[in-house]
Amino acid sequence: MVPVGKIVLYGVGLMNGSLGLALRARSFAGEVVGCGRREESLRQALERGAIDRYSLDPADALDGADVVVVGTPVDRVAGTVAELADHSPARCVFTDVGSVKASIVAACAVRAPQARFVGSHPIAGSEKAGVGAARESLFQGSTCVVTTSPDADAWALVCALWEFVGCRVVEMSPEAHDELLAASSHLPHIAAAALVHVVAGTEADARRALDFVGQGFRDTTRIASGSPDVWTSIVTHNAAPLVRLIRGLADELQRIADAVTAQDHDLIHAWLASAREARESLSP
Amino acid sequence: MVPVGKIVLYGVGLMNGSLGLALRARSFAGEVVGCGRREESLRQALERGAIDRYSLDPADALDGADVVVVGTPVDRVAGTVAELADHSPARCVFTDVGSVKASIVAACAVRAPQARFVGSHPIAGSEKAGVGAARESLFQGSTCVVTTSPDADAWALVCALWEFVGCRVVEMSPEAHDELLAASSHLPHIAAAALVHVVAGTEADARRALDFVGQGFRDTTRIASGSPDVWTSIVTHNAAPLVRLIRGLADELQRIADAVTAQDHDLIHAWLASAREARESLSP
Repeated sequence: MVPVGKIVLYGVGLMNGSLGLALRARSFAGEVVGCGRREESLRQALERGAIDRYSLDPADALDGADVVVVGTPVDRVAGTVAELADHSPARCVFTDVGSVKASIVAACAVRAPQARFVGSHPIAGSEKAGVGAARESLFQGSTCVVTTSPDADAWALVCALWEFVGCRVVEMSPEAHDELLAASSHLPHIAAAALVHVVAGTEADARRALDFVGQGFRDTTRIASGSPDVWTSIVTHNAAPLVRLIRGLADELQRIADAVTAQDHDLIHAWLASAREARESLSP
Repeated sequence: MVPVGKIVLYGVGLMNGSLGLALRARSFAGEVVGCGRREESLRQALERGAIDRYSLDPADALDGADVVVVGTPVDRVAGTVAELADHSPARCVFTDVGSVKASIVAACAVRAPQARFVGSHPIAGSEKAGVGAARESLFQGSTCVVTTSPDADAWALVCALWEFVGCRVVEMSPEAHDELLAASSHLPHIAAAALVHVVAGTEADARRALDFVGQGFRDTTRIASGSPDVWTSIVTHNAAPLVRLIRGLADELQRIADAVTAQDHDLIHAWLASAREARESLSP
């Protein structure tokens, strides 16, 4: 259980909406209050049962709050924490759900040094956005990274929150998180979008390659339907690790193109076989 | 319906197995005979009802055959047609199911000039191989490319076969087919395998990126589980168009890496938005 009386969800979209539904489904004993700028999202969250009530006024919403989960795009997390910290009790613990961590943790330390902020990234999601796509099972069985913090009590509280809704919590430095997620999440997104661009631009005899795709292409590019707003924030906030990996992928492609040009069957076969082996080490 | 009495399926794996099941499900009136080198596959095809009988002896299997569908990997199609043509009636029409067309059509013209060969590529499949993965609905609603042929009767017969099992037939030159499929199918396969290699090689703080992947990475790389044998044949037989596209994808990635490095939010946003638009023009 989570030993707190009042949780505020600031910005109730897919992630915070799902968190609210999960808290309710698991009979969280305290109060869950929505806050944010867009009343329409908050009203929808209330109708779906993701929050007990909402307020557009941070001072009202955060009065007596124990935990605030900031669900804004990553480029607005630190600014939001800085703004909200003035309205919350000193004991209040802040966390977020952003897909990058180093820039957010650093910016919170500078812009809201008084706030007890601990970074979170529940690794769960959907190419769909908004509270309409929220579901109570989103976090069940998923991994949540909670970044290392000197504030042991705040850290334990954030971990308890995510474990309560079904996550396996992993502690990591913000930098290690960004390095790993650049590979496991941000690079696949860029790769899918790049593939769509190349394939959409291919024509032969006035027929478009896009009209001849099978299930393979559909699966490979599904995440390219993600929100451009959300993903522009993510990739620009994790530029250094991501750029290194994008260039690494480009190099890997040039190497296999060289092997295909050379008709090096053995190398191509070994390369495909080891990719299959690594892929099959994952669950489907 | 298909106006023939006897169809031979040579090499009964996923594609020919599914073809046999579809012929049966649609009450094909003639006989469907399996042939090939691996008796185990043929016996399994018989047990699954994909063929009426089988023979390991091509002379026996092809006696009186009207159509032979060669289901071998692409590097063995022309050799198989050359071998089987000696055992078949002169009227017999040959086709295949291979994912490349120019090299196969050219090789058949050289190695089996007496055979009435028309190239086919039903664009349907699975990352699973073998007759065990065959299903009668595999071709339902899919596109089948049948390559242009001067033999109008043979061409019409091959089209009738694929339409009978639910395909929409599209005529194309072998070269146009290879250009389009390099983009829509072969490039996504290479991109998925390259992505697996880069991500599997990423570690931070002794944690592997592969342990932190979400559904996005799983979808994006599902096809990397395809058979290395099958795909080595495909990529080496479609080298010229594929290499051009692989290098084009590498260039596209370098361009977006430059934009991320430059923190060019507008360019990144526009690039992600147009990828999403193109992706969403497809059905899911």
